[in-house]
Parts: sequence; C-alpha cells; structure tokens
Amino acid sequence: MSETTPTTEVPTTSEAGEEKKSKKALNKELKKQQKEEKKNAAKAAKPQQQQQVVQNPLETSGDNFGRAPMNQSQNRAGKKYTPVESINPSLNGEKVLVRARVHLATATGSLAFMVLRDAMHTIQAVLSAAGNGKPMVKFAGAIPKESIVDMEATVITTKEPINRCTQKDVELQVLSLFIVSEAQQLPLQLEDLARPTHELEQQKKTIEELDEKLKSLTLSEAERSDLEKKKGEANKYAEVLLDTRLNNRVLDLRVPSHQAIFRLQSAVGMLFREYLHSNNFVEIHTPKMISSASESGASVFKLGYFDTNAYLAQSPQFYKQMAICSDMERVYEIGPVFRAENSFTHRHLTEFVGLDIEMSFREHYHEVLDVLDNLMCSIFEGLETRFAKELETIKAQYGYEPFKFTRPSPRFTFDEAAAMLNEIGETVVDNDINTTQEKLLGKIIKKKYGVDFYIIDKFYRTARPFYTMPDPNNELLANAYDLFMRGEEICSGAQRIHDAKMLEESAAKHGINIPSIQAYIDAFKYGAAPHAGGGVGLERVVMLYLGIGNIRKTSMFPRDPKRIAP
Amino acid sequence: MSETTPTTEVPTTSEAGEEKKSKKALNKELKKQQKEEKKNAAKAAKPQQQQQVVQNPLETSGDNFGRAPMNQSQNRAGKKYTPVESINPSLNGEKVLVRARVHLATATGSLAFMVLRDAMHTIQAVLSAAGNGKPMVKFAGAIPKESIVDMEATVITTKEPINRCTQKDVELQVLSLFIVSEAQQLPLQLEDLARPTHELEQQKKTIEELDEKLKSLTLSEAERSDLEKKKGEANKYAEVLLDTRLNNRVLDLRVPSHQAIFRLQSAVGMLFREYLHSNNFVEIHTPKMISSASESGASVFKLGYFDTNAYLAQSPQFYKQMAICSDMERVYEIGPVFRAENSFTHRHLTEFVGLDIEMSFREHYHEVLDVLDNLMCSIFEGLETRFAKELETIKAQYGYEPFKFTRPSPRFTFDEAAAMLNEIGETVVDNDINTTQEKLLGKIIKKKYGVDFYIIDKFYRTARPFYTMPDPNNELLANAYDLFMRGEEICSGAQRIHDAKMLEESAAKHGINIPSIQAYIDAFKYGAAPHAGGGVGLERVVMLYLGIGNIRKTSMFPRDPKRIAP
Repeated sequence: MSETTPTTEVPTTSEAGEEKKSKKALNKELKKQQKEEKKNAAKAAKPQQQQQVVQNPLETSGDNFGRAPMNQSQNRAGKKYTPVESINPSLNGEKVLVRARVHLATATGSLAFMVLRDAMHTIQAVLSAAGNGKPMVKFAGAIPKESIVDMEATVITTKEPINRCTQKDVELQVLSLFIVSEAQQLPLQLEDLARPTHELEQQKKTIEELDEKLKSLTLSEAERSDLEKKKGEANKYAEVLLDTRLNNRVLDLRVPSHQAIFRLQSAVGMLFREYLHSNNFVEIHTPKMISSASESGASVFKLGYFDTNAYLAQSPQFYKQMAICSDMERVYEIGPVFRAENSFTHRHLTEFVGLDIEMSFREHYHEVLDVLDNLMCSIFEGLETRFAKELETIKAQYGYEPFKFTRPSPRFTFDEAAAMLNEIGETVVDNDINTTQEKLLGKIIKKKYGVDFYIIDKFYRTARPFYTMPDPNNELLANAYDLFMRGEEICSGAQRIHDAKMLEESAAKHGINIPSIQAYIDAFKYGAAPHAGGGVGLERVVMLYLGIGNIRKTSMFPRDPKRIAP
Repeated sequence: MSETTPTTEVPTTSEAGEEKKSKKALNKELKKQQKEEKKNAAKAAKPQQQQQVVQNPLETSGDNFGRAPMNQSQNRAGKKYTPVESINPSLNGEKVLVRARVHLATATGSLAFMVLRDAMHTIQAVLSAAGNGKPMVKFAGAIPKESIVDMEATVITTKEPINRCTQKDVELQVLSLFIVSEAQQLPLQLEDLARPTHELEQQKKTIEELDEKLKSLTLSEAERSDLEKKKGEANKYAEVLLDTRLNNRVLDLRVPSHQAIFRLQSAVGMLFREYLHSNNFVEIHTPKMISSASESGASVFKLGYFDTNAYLAQSPQFYKQMAICSDMERVYEIGPVFRAENSFTHRHLTEFVGLDIEMSFREHYHEVLDVLDNLMCSIFEGLETRFAKELETIKAQYGYEPFKFTRPSPRFTFDEAAAMLNEIGETVVDNDINTTQEKLLGKIIKKKYGVDFYIIDKFYRTARPFYTMPDPNNELLANAYDLFMRGEEICSGAQRIHDAKMLEESAAKHGINIPSIQAYIDAFKYGAAPHAGGGVGLERVVMLYLGIGNIRKTSMFPRDPKRIAP
C-alpha cells in the first residue's frame, strides 16, 4: 500500500483544479447528510436499512470512488493515462492512471481483487479495507464485469508471478476508482469465449473416456456412481458455439485472441500495401455497383438502381484491367467482393475483402507471378517478425503451428501436382483438382518441401475464365496460376488476353453475351499492354496463416446466406 | 545515328539467342520470297501493286521492325526496359529499350518523327531513310496513335529543347521498332482530351469578343467577312464534354493530368494510412450488405439477399462504433459508401470512397478532432512535398492554386461562423449554413486567415444524427464538427452517445424504429468507452485540394443516378 491516503491525494477523474475542490466539499457535505439520514433510518428500521447497503454497494461513493458523470467532454485536463501493456517493474512505486475494463472483481471481507483488461493485456489490482476503507472495497467488488473504469494506483512489483494476467510481475494498489461506463448483465462470459480449445478438447476426451468405461458390463453400483460423478465434474466448461459468438460479436471480439486476429488482419493489409507501394503500384477504387452481371453470370446480387437495375461486383477484374488499359501500369485494390453463392463451407462468405493486383509486364507473366510470390512472402515475414505478441495471444487460445515458407516459393505445374496426387493413388478427373485433393496435395508438399505456401501454374483452360491467355505451346493449357496456403487456394490469377479480337472470340466461345461486356472489350481496342494479375482473399489468408479453420473467425461481421446481421 | 547498323545489332523483341538467329534466317527467306512475288506481280499489274504498298506500310517488316507476335509469354529473356521518365542527358550515346505508346507518328519523305508516351512522360524519336531505310521510316509514320511499341534506340542530347515533350533535352535515334499492340481508329483524340483549360477559355473569350464586334451596325461587308473569317480560325479546338470523356474513360484516363489525378488519389489513401498506423489505428473492414436501412432511412439501395432483402451501407458508422465497443480502440476503414440520392451536383456520387475513423478518447472529443486535424494536414503536406511532379502535370492542363493550411488549423464554433456571415449581410436560417453560404464562408476565412482548410465545431443538434452527443453546457448544441476545404465540407464527425439508455431515447425522439437498430444499441450495454470519429470523402478531398470543380474527375469510374457504366 502506498503511504498517501487516497482521499487527500487523488483527484477525481472528470474534474480538475478549482472544480475538484468544490466537488470535495460537496461530497463531504453529502456524506455528512447521508450519515445523518442513515442514523435516523437505522433508528426506524434497522434490518431493512442494512439490507439496502448490502444490496447495492455501487450506490456508495467517496472522493476517490464512485460513478463518474457521463462523459460529454466537460473538461480537458490533459491527464496522462498509462496503457496496461506499458505497466512493468520499471514503474515500481510510481502512480499511474489507467482506463480499462473490469475483467474480474471480487471482494472478500476486507480485501478486493480486480483484474483490469485493456485489449490484449491484463493486470491485477488490489484494495484493502485498511488502505481504502470498507465502502470502497465493497464498491470495487461489486463493479459488474466489462464495465470501464478509471483507476489511479501505485505500481508494485510482485514477489510471486501473477499467472492469470499478462502483466505477471506487477500489480496495482488502488488509490481511486471511478466507473466510466457500467456494464449490464452479460449474455455470455468472457472466460467462456476465451476458453482455450485445448482445454475444451481435453474435457471432451476425458468425458469420452469416462463414457467408454461406463459401457462396461462388470461395473458395480458404486463404481458406476463414482464414474458418473467424475463425468459430472469433468463437464465443467460450456463450449460457446460459433453462431452464438457471432450473434454476440461485440463481446466475442473483446476476447484477447480475437483482438489479436483483427490486429493481424489489419497488419496483412498494411504489409500488402507496403510491398506494393515500394514496387510502384497505384491504389485504385473501382465501382461495386455495375450495370451487368457479366463476369460469370451466376451468383450475383441484384439491386434496384433508380429506374433500372444494377449488380454488385463479383470482383474488380474488368475494372482493374481497364485501369491497365488506361496506363496505370501497376494497380491494386482492397475492397469488398460480393458472391451470391448459396454455400456454407468453412471458407466461403457472401461478402469478403479482396486484395487484388493487376500489372502490365514486359516479356512473361512470370514477372507478375514473381511479384505475387514476393508479396505473399513479405506478408508472412512481416507477420512473423513484427506481430509476435499477437501470434502468441492467438496461440494461447487456439494453438498455432508456425507457418513455413521459402523465398522463392516452390512452383509446380498443374500436371506435376496431378502426378504427385497420382503417386498416392488419387485420380485427378477432368483436369481439375478438387478441394479434398488440394488438402492432400498441401500435405504432400509440406512433407516433401517443408512449406505451407506454394504455387501451381499452367492450369487447364477448361478450368479458367474466358479472359485467360492460352499457353503458347499447348492449346489445352492456360497461363494461369493459383497460390496455396496449407493446402487451400488463397489466390487465383493469370495472364489476361490483351487483344480485343481474341478476347471477343473467347467470350463468344464461352457463351457470353458480348454487348453486356462491350465497354470491357472496347478497352483493348486502342492499344493494350500484356498484363497479368490475381486476387487474394484477405480473410482466407488470415484464417490459413493461423490455421484456425473457419473464415467466420477472421471476418469481423461475417456474411453468409443465413447471416446478414449484426 | 549510331554507328552500328540496326539489322546486325538489334535483337527482335520477343525472341532471344538461338531462336533469334533462326528467325533472322526465316525473315531473310521470307523477304526473298516476297521480293520474287512482288517482281512477278509488278509485271502483271504494276499500278495496283504500287498502290498496295503505299496503302499499308504496316504490312512491311524487317529484322528490326514490324509487328511483334502477340505476347503469350513465349520467352523470358530478361531484357532491361528503361522508363521514359528515366531517359535524360546522362544516358547520352547509350542504347535503351523502351516500351511506350505512340503519342504521335509522322513520316515526311525521308524522315519520321515520333513522340512516345509512357504514363505522364513523353519523348521524341527520329528515324531517317539514310539510317533506317525507307520502308522502316514509312512503317514508323504509319503506326496508329496509341499503339504500344517496343523501341530500341540511341539516346542523343538535343541542341534545342523539345518543348512538346516532357523529356526536353534528349531524343531517341531509333534502331528497332516493333508494334506490341496496335490501336484501332480512336473515337477521341488525346490532344483534345488533354487540351489545357486556359487555351479553351482563351478561345471562348476571343470568339465572344469577335461576336461582340459582329453586333456592330456600322460594319462594312468586307469588315464583317473579315471578322467571320477570324472567328472561324479562332474556333479551332473542340471542347470534349465530361459525359463524352466518361463514356470513353479508358482513353480519357490516359491523359497525363488524369494519370496524375489518380496517382494523387492513391497518395491520399497512402498518406491517410501512414498517419493512422503511426498513431496505433487498426484497419477494419465492415459489411456493406446490411439487414436494415436504419441510419437515415431514406436514400438506400435495396437488394435481394437469398430469400430476404438487404441494403447497401450508407456509411460504416454503426459498425465502426461497434468495433470501438469491441475494444479496437482506434479504427479506420477505407471502403465504398452508397447513397441512393437522386442528385446531380458537382460534389455528389451514388458510390464514393469513405475514409472513416473512429477512436475512443479519454477526456474530451477534441482529442479526436486534433487527430483529424493533424491527419488532414499530414496529407496536404505529403502531397505538396512528395507529389510535386503530379501537381505540376495537373497544373499544366487545369491550373492549380496552391492549397494553404496551417498546423493546427483554425477552428470556429458554428455561432462564430454564422457571425462572420452575418457581418457580410448573410442570414443563417434554422441554425444551418447552406452550401452557398459555406462557399462564402470559405472565402471570408481565406481572406482573414489565409487558409483553405479549417474546422467548424459545435453544430446545432437539430442538424445532426440521433447518435450525436449533446454539448454539456448548452442543450441546443452538439459535440459535432465539420472539416472544410476551399469552402466545401469534406468530413462530418462528432462525439457519439456511448450510453445505451441515452442512445435509445435519442433514437426514439428521432422517430427511429428501435428494433431495426437493436444490435447497435445493445453494443453499448456492456461497457462502452467515450468515443468520436468522422468520415472523409476521398474523391472530395482530391477534387478540392486540386480545385478542379467536379467530383466525376476524381472518381475513376464515377456513379451518379444516370451513370452506371462503364
């Protein structure tokens, strides 16, 4: 405990200077008045009055604790707040002001323990009746979880590490405590949302083992009862289903590992741009409302557009190519992509974030493939070296197998990939590797080459869109490639046809209604440079880098055919 | 001219090494064959054959000129290409390989002059019958404008500056010339699209003056005829209307000043992120398809969503606030914003790019306003210091009055702004400054304070959305602000109500259907930090920074109620 008594040293949170003094005076008067009232009330109905005090310790207040007035920006004193992350033994004995959530709060007689949480970081705080007075201890213990508080406290290094917090070597001895925003009853507990998957798996395993034993026909009544009891004890954690999490996404996102996931998602975008800007790419923004559902025909969302209809873009494909025809040379776009596919897999969303690039090249589309390869490797490298804290936080809940890559990444032709699958008895049908085979291939390549990231080139033309440039030496093949992470596709790309005549012929062969894409075809009539590109799915990259199995976990507010809210 | 003869030194563009030799041999044979055929044909029908040669010099070819085969990525020789931008007197006498567009090409007898264009840069190239042979000179002169060529050439410093090109001190003496992509007849000429506005204005003025003179009643027949002739001569440039430009956007975007505009647009996004990342902001991506048209009710696009309906988000407002309730602390988003407003002003689009931020603060929403102020100033500073070349290119066509700002920017309350307008006799009605008055205010502030960027704070509550936090001292006012550039609003923002009860009451007072925004209101029930934010329109920032008067010029493929293509 610090030597100063909180009541004389600690200013209130939302008032300063002159106003503070008057509030103090006011508080003293109020307290006096309250005491008088209490005395009188006690005389009249002693048991009832006692019960009220026990019921709501949050209604009590003092100079150094209570509910802060609602922040309407009444003052700007310029006080210095310290993030929980920065509190460490170097601050031993110093006074800090912290704004954080109440992760836990318990009062047991003359002591109160709190855990404060500030995004990914937690710290323990302590109050005692001797140091803070009994009302403040009770107040602290009664603060609802997830409330936001302002706390002044002295930093003290601890003798024993506090294992339940991220800040293990320090704790806070509370000087003042004000509720900034009080939480209502929670529909879900953060502990349940943050439960490590390995604990849940262990629980499942234990219960399965007990169930197995219970099947035995030779159990005595006592043995059976004992096993049932053990089973009851083992079944201590409720597993929160993904749907429940998503219905309560605002709480679910507060879980430190989820904080980390979306900080990593932001990092992927940042690293993507960093690499591209340093390679002379220009960011473009292309329209999401388009006049015809042309690129693939199916799977588009239709909307009313004044007195006509429009469609949501399935990709910026046509527009980024038109930007190339407009001499933008190297372009990228980060934006929403809409797919009206009625599918419920672990890797499909109806709206996701596309990281698209398109680039004119000089001689060979492999110039572009090299850029894509280096781009992805830069992202992996950046995540590994600059976001270790986030990865560790995610690992604590979900586990994390480090992502392996080499620079340059191994490249295989489609035929080489098919041959690897043939070797283990998998037959590739119609020159198209299915998603199960893709997963298998990922495992083969991981085993053979030790990497989670690789490229497959020279897909068959039948598997690619009409605007894909054919291979010059084998008319069955295309200058088309996919990028894979842990056996799943994250990017599809190709050299595009840059000749208007050839493009129109190819579109016609694919049964596309030419007038609906006339502006696109016309773009290639006035000189067009050879070019290639690709589109990367942001949520997929994060999901597969972390290996956390469902794309809804890496989309902040995911959309699928059944989910359009929150 | 270089001393080497092109035919022996210059490899063809798309072939290398062994293949080159065999192609040479093949070409020689072909030529021989063609010569034989020509001789025979000449005997039979001499005049006709001559006419054919004259008609299509592009059909001729040689070892060092002709049409390159279509690039299907046949080879990757790794040749070094030099951007036009990099060609300067330091390369005098050196051989370079350039890929660029043919901006101009003319052959006059024994000489051909070309101007090559590479995005924002142009350079002159020369061929002569003596050095290159007559067929190659004719070939060069016949290449359609906007075709893309590969040219090998020797860099020569010029005695006189070449004023029509950006590279004024050098020209290229051509060694080889191959068409990579041949342009068809252009619907519009680049010269017309790139015509400086001051030249068009001068022309208009001249014609107006002549028209004025023609009104005179005392003119003789000869004088009248002379004036009419002068008027005809003055009317030499066709002004290309914006609609025509947008219908041919791929060509229009090739104009160097338009290249520069979209490079600046990319720069604004980059500078925006640079500042925010260095201030611990996290990028988020929120859904554009939402379940209810709630934020303002009117002006939303409706779409079919499987067996129900959805709406396009008018802003990420609710979701970025929910991210704050999820402890993301400081977030930004760059993404499309959809407004189904049937308006045709110079500053409205139905789809634009929103640069949104939202940030929890400690004491006062001015913490956030300071961030917004510094953010915008960082962008202005970055454009000025790091994109001078682009600004100069834009100035050449459109003129450009340098953008003035101070750091910090001047701030006024709404009442102070209204008083400034009152001083010049403008009455502010209903505590809302209209757009004409905004423009006037911009002029007053420019005159008084010398700046094009300023902030107006403390708007009246009646003018702001339901989620705006009221001022603590005057219930008519809100903690709400707008940012202005050259007298037009580019950002609207405020402290938001972070208390669920207060928020619900305010929504009810505004007549909002509470169940439709329940998830949003619920987000504030479990502890919410005080926060504020704002949304900036990207296209407006670029338009107003440059002062080019129409937002369609700063949107790559703009959308308004009548324009949904290309």
